[in-house]
This record gives sequence, structure tokens and C-alpha cells, in this order.
Amino acid sequence: MANNDLHILKQLMREFADTRDWNQFHSPKNLAMALSVEAAELVEHFQWLNEEQSRNLSQDKLDAVAHELADTLLYLVRLADKLDIDLLTAAQNKMKLNNQKYPVEKSRGNAKKYTEFATDS
Amino acid sequence: MANNDLHILKQLMREFADTRDWNQFHSPKNLAMALSVEAAELVEHFQWLNEEQSRNLSQDKLDAVAHELADTLLYLVRLADKLDIDLLTAAQNKMKLNNQKYPVEKSRGNAKKYTEFATDS
Amino acid sequence: MANNDLHILKQLMREFADTRDWNQFHSPKNLAMALSVEAAELVEHFQWLNEEQSRNLSQDKLDAVAHELADTLLYLVRLADKLDIDLLTAAQNKMKLNNQKYPVEKSRGNAKKYTEFATDS
Amino acid sequence: MANNDLHILKQLMREFADTRDWNQFHSPKNLAMALSVEAAELVEHFQWLNEEQSRNLSQDKLDAVAHELADTLLYLVRLADKLDIDLLTAAQNKMKLNNQKYPVEKSRGNAKKYTEFATDS
Repeated sequence: MANNDLHILKQLMREFADTRDWNQFHSPKNLAMALSVEAAELVEHFQWLNEEQSRNLSQDKLDAVAHELADTLLYLVRLADKLDIDLLTAAQNKMKLNNQKYPVEKSRGNAKKYTEFATDS
Repeated sequence: MANNDLHILKQLMREFADTRDWNQFHSPKNLAMALSVEAAELVEHFQWLNEEQSRNLSQDKLDAVAHELADTLLYLVRLADKLDIDLLTAAQNKMKLNNQKYPVEKSRGNAKKYTEFATDS
Repeated sequence: MANNDLHILKQLMREFADTRDWNQFHSPKNLAMALSVEAAELVEHFQWLNEEQSRNLSQDKLDAVAHELADTLLYLVRLADKLDIDLLTAAQNKMKLNNQKYPVEKSRGNAKKYTEFATDS
Repeated sequence: MANNDLHILKQLMREFADTRDWNQFHSPKNLAMALSVEAAELVEHFQWLNEEQSRNLSQDKLDAVAHELADTLLYLVRLADKLDIDLLTAAQNKMKLNNQKYPVEKSRGNAKKYTEFATDS
């Protein structure tokens, strides 16, 4: 697994923080805050667009959004590392639960079901 | 790259949404909102803890946090997929910028520098 | 001004925290986190709705949204109190700046201008 | 009630949006997003501070935080207006519920109780 995506990013973030002596700032509490701030910077790009516009971003906007996605992912990887959580395993386990909770036949195209999915996670 | 982490999760999310006909809900605008909500659910676990406590979570708390990290990552992967953004490349590019912006010798253990890093991204 | 809205809520929150000895948890850092979590709980009600649906909520949904608005406002008032910031004055000053920054004649119905307004605050 | 705080701000926001023809952007969905983004900008000021530092902000930092508090409040007032929700009443009702839910004698200085308060709202 040494060369998979999340491992590569984990190592980049470790080295970045270690060489700057920034581990002192990287408590899980602080990293969770930073992650949510980056997620909000992502939201900011979409807040006044309608859904159709959000599907058709200009290249400039796409580049800006890619930066925010990157920041969010990097803090996510860093937080998981500090808590010793394996992100891939956690995400795969969550998808198994989602598949059980929302059986295909009952959930198909069902906004109501979807809304429940959205709100009780 | 077909069996790397982020690709695996992208495929899981595609199949999950496709079989349920949920693409209609997955506009980038909506996915960005959902991502930020999951990030906040993560923050909620830490809001009344001090930093030291946040480094020493119980196993139950860790399991709950792992679920929120998973949800956040899954929406992040899904949003990137809908925008056709390669997350690994975006994150690696961002780290190159961060390395240029915060030279090791000037940034070492420097809270002020760090704060600037934090606030002008 | 002793009986105005924000003063009333400030006093309610003070008494609530004082009698429970909860000031120890109410650092500005923690309150800012709690405020952002409540704001996200508000967003959660809207994330899968389209804009038109968001203008036509059921009474049940409206009641739930009112609770989230209340939670958000209460933490906002509490945080301002802890920082000794007068919310009414701060908001009135901000509106003066907004009026200067977005002259009516240049901003009318202008999504581009609006977007700038939204993103550089 | 015509000259109370929240009413004053509601009127300022109405006039600001009306004269610029910006009601078209102010769907509840969009306003909820904008509110959460402002809340995150507030969080950003605190993310790398420890709790003690967050209680002792410089005047410059306080001024910047006051702007973010103002932005958050203004969107909160605007969203409540669009949904025809009376914020003062909603907040007072919520405080009544909180008082019932967290009896003084059981909640005093009790972090565990407090944490429950924080997470099941």
C-alpha cells in the first residue's frame, strides 16, 4: 500500500509539518476546525450559483475549486493520521453500512428516502 | 492507477448513486453543502474538548470520528468526480505551492508564519 | 436599550451558563466552533432541496429550521458577549461598508457584482 | 417592537437587497450556505489559537472578528426574514427547552452532561 494515494499524501503532510515544527499546532481539535474552514471555502464558490451553473464552471473557477478540494483533502488526511485512522478502511466500511441502510429497490429515485439518508447520518 | 484508494472510492460512490438514481441530487452545489455538513459533524465531536483531550479519544469516540471522516471523504471524492478533478494531482500541486510559500527556514516553529499560512489560503 | 432583543438573549445565555458553571467550556474558540456546527445543521435542512423548494418549506420543516436558527443566534450572542463586542453596532457598521462597496447603480441585478460581494467579504 | 435590534437589521437588509434587485439570489438555500461560510470565516480566526489565546485577542483581531460576527448575524436575520420566522421568539422558546432539558442541579459543572447537550441539539 506504500504507493497508494492516501499514503502518499499522508507522508507529504508529515514531512511538511515535521520540517517546520508545526505538529504543535496540529491537535485533532485544530485540524478538525481547519478542515471545516476549507470545506466552507469550497462552499463559497457555489453559494450564489444555481445547480445548473454549478455543473458548468469556467476553467478559472474549476482551478480555484480544485485548490479548495486539495486543502480539504490534505487536512482530512492529516487529521486521520493524527488519530491513527485508516481512511480507506473507514470509507469502505461506511459504504457497506450505506448499502445496507438504503436498499436499491426501496431507494431508487426516491427523494424522501434520500433526504432521510442525508439527515440521519 | 485503477486500484488506488481514491479510484476505489470513486467507483463505489458512482455505483451507489447510479443504482439508486441519485445523480439528480448530486449537483456540485449540493455535494459541496453535504461535504461541509459532514465536516461540521466532525467538528462537533471536538468542540467542547481541549486540545489535549482531542489527542486522547476513547475507542467509542474514535469509531464515531472515523465515520464522520469517512462521510467527509466520500462526498469529497464524489464532488471531485462530478467536476472531473483529479484529487491526487490537485493535492500534490497544492503541496508544491505550500512548500514554496512557507520555506522551512522561515517557518520553523513560527506561530505567526503559521497563522498567515492558515488565513490566506 | 435594556429591553432590546439582543440584550435579552445575552442575559438569558449568561444566566443559563452561570447557574450551570459552564463558563469553563465557553472559550471564544469553542463557541465559534459550536456556532459553525449549528450553522451546518441549518444547511443540512436545505442541502438536497432546490432553491424553489427551499422557499416553500412544510410547517414541520419550518419549525425544525427555526430551532437551528435559534441555536445559531444564541451562540452568536454568547460569543459576542464573551468578546465584549456589541452586535448591533458591528452589524450597522458592516452595512455602512456594504453600502459604500456596492453602490446601487452599479450593483443592480448584477450577478457578477454580487458574486464579488459574496467572495471577498 | 419597531425599533428593536433584530427589526432594525431586518429592515436594513431588506432595503439593501431590494434596491440592488438581489432578492433573486436570496433563496433560503443560498442564504443558509452564505451564513455557514461566514461562520467558518469566524472559526478561521480561532483555529490555531489555544483557548486562552482566544480569550485575549488583540484589538485588530477583535475588529476582524466583529466583522465576521456582523456578517453572520446579517445573513441569519435575512434568512429568518425570508422564512418569516421571528428570531427573538424562536430563541426564547429554545432557551425554555434548554432549561427543561438541562436542570441546574444535574448539569452543574458537568462536562459529560454538557457534551450531551452539545451533541443532541
